[in-house]
This record gives sequence, C-alpha cells and structure tokens, in this order.
Amino acid sequence: MKKIRLVLFGFGTVGQAVYELLTTERSRILGVVNQSADQLQDKVDYNIVSIVVRDVEKYQAEFSHISHLFTTEWPSEADYDLAIELVSSAAGGDIIAQALKSGKDVVSANKLALYQSAGQLEALANEHGRIFRYEGAVAGAIPILQIISPLGSGEIQLIRGILNGSTNYILTRLFEDSELSVEDAIAEASKKGYLEADPTLDVGGFDALYKLGILIYMATGQYPAESDIERIGIDTLTDEAIAEAKSANKTYKLVAEADFKTGRYRVTPQLLASTDPLYGVDGSLNAVTLTHQYAGELTLQGPGAGGLETASAVISDLIYIMREGA
Amino acid sequence: MKKIRLVLFGFGTVGQAVYELLTTERSRILGVVNQSADQLQDKVDYNIVSIVVRDVEKYQAEFSHISHLFTTEWPSEADYDLAIELVSSAAGGDIIAQALKSGKDVVSANKLALYQSAGQLEALANEHGRIFRYEGAVAGAIPILQIISPLGSGEIQLIRGILNGSTNYILTRLFEDSELSVEDAIAEASKKGYLEADPTLDVGGFDALYKLGILIYMATGQYPAESDIERIGIDTLTDEAIAEAKSANKTYKLVAEADFKTGRYRVTPQLLASTDPLYGVDGSLNAVTLTHQYAGELTLQGPGAGGLETASAVISDLIYIMREGA
Repeated sequence: MKKIRLVLFGFGTVGQAVYELLTTERSRILGVVNQSADQLQDKVDYNIVSIVVRDVEKYQAEFSHISHLFTTEWPSEADYDLAIELVSSAAGGDIIAQALKSGKDVVSANKLALYQSAGQLEALANEHGRIFRYEGAVAGAIPILQIISPLGSGEIQLIRGILNGSTNYILTRLFEDSELSVEDAIAEASKKGYLEADPTLDVGGFDALYKLGILIYMATGQYPAESDIERIGIDTLTDEAIAEAKSANKTYKLVAEADFKTGRYRVTPQLLASTDPLYGVDGSLNAVTLTHQYAGELTLQGPGAGGLETASAVISDLIYIMREGA
Repeated sequence: MKKIRLVLFGFGTVGQAVYELLTTERSRILGVVNQSADQLQDKVDYNIVSIVVRDVEKYQAEFSHISHLFTTEWPSEADYDLAIELVSSAAGGDIIAQALKSGKDVVSANKLALYQSAGQLEALANEHGRIFRYEGAVAGAIPILQIISPLGSGEIQLIRGILNGSTNYILTRLFEDSELSVEDAIAEASKKGYLEADPTLDVGGFDALYKLGILIYMATGQYPAESDIERIGIDTLTDEAIAEAKSANKTYKLVAEADFKTGRYRVTPQLLASTDPLYGVDGSLNAVTLTHQYAGELTLQGPGAGGLETASAVISDLIYIMREGA
C-alpha cells in the first residue's frame, strides 16, 4: 500500500469542492485508481495532510471539523507527495514551481499562473521528472486538454470555442431580455458573483485569452505572447449592435479562435448565425471545436465553471497521477 | 532506444488507414510519444513486422511496395510486441485473446468481438498485466472511452447518443428528400457501401447495441446481456411516421440510451424536437452526452466512422501504450 500525502493550496469555491469530493467519494476514487492493482504493494491510498490558506481564521469557524488542517505554513518537503494548487491568482505560479522543484507532482486549475509562466512550469516538471496536470484550468468540466495530445497522429488545424462562462452568461441574458442594456447585464452578473474580482479579466476577454493560450500550447508546444492574440472584450458591444443582431436572428458570442493555418489567434465577439455550432451554447456552458487533420471536427460541450464541475476535472487529474505516477 | 514491433491484423478500410498514418506520420507520432523522454534508453521507436490477412493475394498487386509484409501466419511470440486487431469480425476475439495470453499489448477497434466476449478480453488483459485499448470501437474519432474512467469522482447517471453513422445517414437523407421511401434510402446506403455486409447489423440497431454495451461496461464494469437492452431498428419506421414527424418539425434519430438511475438500456428510433441536443447531429456524425454527478452534462460530437477518422483513434491508443507501456 502506497500512501500519497496531499496538500491543498487555496480553499475557495473549487478548493472546497475538491476537499468535499476527496472525502465523500474516497472509496469510489480509490476504486478507480486501484482497478488493475492486484497486489497490496501496488495499491494506492491518499490522505490530506494540510490546507494552505492566506488567512486561517477565515475558515476556522465554518469548517471547525477540519480546522486542524488549515495552515499558513508551506509544508516541509518530507511531509507531502502531491500539491493541489487552487489559489487562482498569479501567486499560484510560485507555489507550483516550488512544489515541482522539490520533486512533487502537481495538479492545478490556475490558467493565469500557467499562461503567465509561458511554459516554464511545464519545463520545470519535465526537468524534475514530475507529473503536472491542469485539466480544470480550461473549460471547467470539459476534458479538453486530456484529448489534445493523444490526437498526435496529425495536425490540429483549428481550435474555436467559448471559453469564458461569465461573459457567455451576460450575452445570453442580453439576447433573452430585450430591456437589458450591455452595462446593466454586466452589473447584474457582477452582483451575482459571476465575475472575477477584477471584472475586466472576464469582460475584457483576458480570461478567455489565457485559456486559449494554454490550448495553443497543448497543440504546438509554445505559449503565444499576449501581443500575438487579438483581444476585444464584450464591453465594446453596443446596445445598437445587440438590437441589430437580434432582428437579423443572429447572436453575439465571445469566441476564442486559433487558426493554425493562417497563424491568426484571437478572442473577439463574433456575430453568429443560427447555423454556427456555437450559436446555441448558452448560459455558463463552454464549448470547443478542434479541427484535426485526420480525426475531423470534434466538438466538446459542457459546464465551463462551477465548484463541483471544476473539482471533477481536478479529481480526474489526481486519478491519473495516482494511477500512473512513480 | 526501445523498439516496439507491431503486427497488424486485418487490412480493410481502417487497417489501411492505420498503416498509412504509421508510415507517413511516423516522426510526428514518435515526437509525441518521446516528448518527455530525455535519455536515449527511455526513447521508443516502432516498426511494422507483418500484416496478417486471410487472403494475401488480394492485396499483393495493389500494395506491391509492402507485399513482403502480408502473411496468413500468426507471428511467433518472440517476433512481436503489440497487436493491432482490425479484422472487424467475431474472429477478432480469438486474435485479441491469443495476443494477450502471450503477453502482448493490444489495440482493437472491434466492437463486435468486445461485446461478445462480455468482459473476458478485459479480464485476460488484467490477468496478464497487459494494456488493452479500443477507442476506435465506439463512435469513431470521438475519444469517448478515454474520458469515461477519469470521471471517477462520481456516478455516471445517463449516457445518450447517436452511435451508428450509417443509420444516421439514412435518416438524414429521409428528412432532406421528401420523395425518398425508407426502403429506398436503405437501398441507397447499401449501394454506396455505407452498410455492413449484413445490413441488419446497422439497420436493426445491433451495431449501436454493441457500442452502447461497451459504454455501459466502461461506466459500470459489467457488460449487459443482449436481452437487457431493448432494441428496435430503423427498419420499423414507416413512410407515414416520417411524413408526420416532418410536418411537426421533428426528426427521427436512432438513439442509444443507458439510464443508470432506472436501469433501462435501449437502442430505439426516437422522435426528437428541435430543442433536443441530438436533433442537429446529421449525416454520419456521432454524438454522445454523458451526464455525470459532478461534471454535469458533457457532450462530444464528431465523425462516427471513416478510415482515417477511426485510424486516428487507433493511433491515440498506440501513443498511449508506447508512452505508458512497460
């Protein structure tokens, strides 16, 4: 029996959901991990040794049953095997780097830290022979990263999708409620807590840009610079443009697109006709179409956000590492 | 450098496409496989040692440049490492079993052999510690099997999809051409070579039933018996039923469905409204929706058939084994 000691960094919506699944679904997860292990020494078990947060007191009352797990201290190298990084700020990059450098496997869902490190985190993982996975960083529950690299028989020619759930929610609201102005729809989403603390991250298209950057990396092995991706936010849409689109039976979506034939990368509002496969992708759904030289056009659609939905992608990564890890 | 010696069983549409990709995309495939191998002894290479067919003469003229590879002989144990089984008949089951028993990894795309062995092939692979993968057996290019088991954080509650491309083509033709009778549409598909030699396999819903059976196995670990799956073919649809559906703005699709909450499994023509996610899945496309306890509703859509499309799934499995295999 090999015991894997997990440390959780960050305890926001996704962190809490990951903790919940790791505890309530423990026997199911271990069942999947140990499916083909027939000897005791091949079997794997796990436990959570600590949850590293910035402010311990913030959680101690509400989570009193696990308050002993909260800490502000970085765990000592000898005390853990696998880091789950869910702080969702740029600081996550340092956390991931430090864990990889001390020889730990890492799971993350931090698109910002990944994109900004421009490939350094992946390089660190390679250099130290560790497994580093981040399925939850792009398109929430949709297992898009998992399927890109096994498509290695041929070229990925086009990636096109809706990668930001909150702007998609705003656009959907605008098209179902003709009274609503662009400004009010953004304010409504903000009040409901659907937007990042800095709303320009979503509304200005940065969040979708980071995610597109990760997809481009998966397809090409290189992160594009921010200046290589055209970026226009949905805050540039006018009430007139929405009204015109409606009367023409069309809709606007914030589309992230990487055309590898022309080398054009962009995150822009696109006016879509009802025949466009992204036309009906509403609310907080995400969808991605990959056009592959041999596999053809593959489309994946699913929840792009949400605590349990994203946690489910994080657990998929954990299952992978617990099965395949050395 | 580790050299993996491949044997191809069967050289039909998919077998030829796999051979083509293995030769023309060799450096790309090895690039993906060896991505994180930094030492020569960790690197993997492959070669095709033989192509086992029933009738060598059938191929020798057209494929004279590789005619030395064709054989009717089973390769000796010492001469190969990995079997790619693409004979697409029940005989494939014996081929897979013999390869696994002699300690070889196996890739297959044979839904019939898999379903009929009712889990024995997977059990053999486990028993002999071999890797056995068959992504191409269900929904062609769509990587549906690859994503099911990592969803191990929670229950799969519903699987619903269009799994047979040829009946979907027939139904699509019926709904776009109002002159066409059900009988004539089936005859047309048969003439175009879209149907199996025994057309009842497609038209009667058996092909979709085998594929649904494999999906149920992936979700539950058990193959359902044929009698546990309700099966109604599209040959039961009347011209009147089609006309009525059209005038109501609806469509018929052959839907394969496993509802794990009620335990009801079925492959039946369903009358779908335009709001149904499967409504617009036309031609030879396949689509599958998985409803998962935590990940929510994930939909995958793509080419359900075709030589290169299915070959691309077979190559994905090969890449997996070459990367992860011992």
